[in-house]
Amino acid sequence: MDEFEIIRRYFTPKEKSESVIVGVGDDGAVLRPDPGRDLITVIDSLVAGVHFPDKLYPEDVGYRAVAVNVSDIAAMGGRPRWMTLALTLDKNKRGWEEDFASGIAIAADTYGIDLVGGDLTHGSETVVSVQITGDVEPGLAITRNGANPGDAIYVSGTPGDASLGLSIIQSNPTLDDPLYTLIRRFTRPDARIELGQTIAPHASAAIDVSDGLFSDLEKMLTASGVSGRIELDDIHLSTELMNTLAEEDRLNFALGGGDDYELCFTSAQEEFFESGEIAGVRVTKIGQVGKGSGLSCAKGGDPFEYHDDGYRHFS
Amino acid sequence: MDEFEIIRRYFTPKEKSESVIVGVGDDGAVLRPDPGRDLITVIDSLVAGVHFPDKLYPEDVGYRAVAVNVSDIAAMGGRPRWMTLALTLDKNKRGWEEDFASGIAIAADTYGIDLVGGDLTHGSETVVSVQITGDVEPGLAITRNGANPGDAIYVSGTPGDASLGLSIIQSNPTLDDPLYTLIRRFTRPDARIELGQTIAPHASAAIDVSDGLFSDLEKMLTASGVSGRIELDDIHLSTELMNTLAEEDRLNFALGGGDDYELCFTSAQEEFFESGEIAGVRVTKIGQVGKGSGLSCAKGGDPFEYHDDGYRHFS
Repeated sequence: MDEFEIIRRYFTPKEKSESVIVGVGDDGAVLRPDPGRDLITVIDSLVAGVHFPDKLYPEDVGYRAVAVNVSDIAAMGGRPRWMTLALTLDKNKRGWEEDFASGIAIAADTYGIDLVGGDLTHGSETVVSVQITGDVEPGLAITRNGANPGDAIYVSGTPGDASLGLSIIQSNPTLDDPLYTLIRRFTRPDARIELGQTIAPHASAAIDVSDGLFSDLEKMLTASGVSGRIELDDIHLSTELMNTLAEEDRLNFALGGGDDYELCFTSAQEEFFESGEIAGVRVTKIGQVGKGSGLSCAKGGDPFEYHDDGYRHFS
Repeated sequence: MDEFEIIRRYFTPKEKSESVIVGVGDDGAVLRPDPGRDLITVIDSLVAGVHFPDKLYPEDVGYRAVAVNVSDIAAMGGRPRWMTLALTLDKNKRGWEEDFASGIAIAADTYGIDLVGGDLTHGSETVVSVQITGDVEPGLAITRNGANPGDAIYVSGTPGDASLGLSIIQSNPTLDDPLYTLIRRFTRPDARIELGQTIAPHASAAIDVSDGLFSDLEKMLTASGVSGRIELDDIHLSTELMNTLAEEDRLNFALGGGDDYELCFTSAQEEFFESGEIAGVRVTKIGQVGKGSGLSCAKGGDPFEYHDDGYRHFS
């Protein structure tokens, strides 16, 4: 099968939205945006052996490649609409593309996105680059640089699960592993699209947690020119993570583990977040923004030294 | 230098257009489209050692990666506007990214595009994926499937030059090589943006010549459900190609050589193209569309058997 045939067979969606005037198969796609909305564009690559283990099911690779990009749109409060895909296939890995395409299609369906273009090349390793265009009401996009002293700091979900899931994958689990919930947090991350759109009018800054809670929050504070302090006891950990890890390891996963694709954000409107659940997702207040710079931690109210190693991909 | 620092230093444009509300450095870019226009989106990857020789100057790699994508927008009659870049850097090739970024910047400037997002990863080989979003008047995008029996077939420029240029590069030329014009046709292709926009109201179908004139024209005819016949004596060859190649080799480069990024298109409005030059570019009538299917060749009016091997990348 040549490139053209592979694209036609696996990557041509059966139906397309009304907004897609010309889809896959021409020099480019022609799209009709909704009038009066701004566009959001994101791009992210996953390299085999760096961003995911070589043994990961190709369907999971496809799903993840879409979800991590949708997550960037979510962190800006936008709605994902159209996707293009550049796939460099490991030339020794024949037969991989069918399951991969199925993961792409499942994720596209989950998030309501049209696959509108792609390029397939062969190389010495697999590299998946997904680009997504979304849209947002003008003025509503949440950036990283709007946090103000006095704002509360929030994070959604239960940090650390995905990186713990990844470490379980590497220990060769079976499919009926009781910790499959954690594994799925790595293989099928939930991009927080509805949460992002709901908080957009209320949040002062947001970022999605891809490299780890500590380092991503630190990036957002730096971009905003402010400092932050988080209370480690306030971070909500999952039962699965609590049951799997000894106390001293929990913080390393929760603060230093990447791949969660939860949203970390700041807001001055604490009453809006009081219920602890927004758009069906747990949202936890974990700290406060201050003047100056840097991110510090407390535990039970006392200063706590946490040394972030930065996120290292598993390899 | 970490990824963030590299992106900040080399890939953050100094100025951005008014249409770029949020540029490089956030979760995504926020863009303001012109009201009432459709979008065109394209993506294309270049793999080192497959789509360009490893020894190509990184600045040329950057320039080409942009130009080949702009060319797809040109083939649809559109205007390029915003670009995102996914760069997987060969981890053994330090210091490559600075000159590469300069090539990206030169091309962005040439074509009036904003670089609005990027992702930098490391892998075992260099893969450059560029995605460009452009726009076009609704209804004016030229597709591949509109050619009708009776239409004339046109091609711009002088086919074969770029692939001949590539073969010269592989023979280790010096910088003052008299055939540098041909080399530049490979390293710095001219995407035919102005030509594409000018022919859009007059052309019935168009494609850009990336894989070779014969095979790309054949694709367009197949998409349109028609046949075509070209007169090989009518293909205009460059003086440099004529002087470099023996007669029997010329056709192989002109018909089978890729990478020209000229436009091949069909039109029923022959009077519009009579002058032989549109938007400052030579446009030559080389054949006619017919009923049925398949692409055949004639030479001096007589049937001529040409066996297209399909484009093979140089490696």
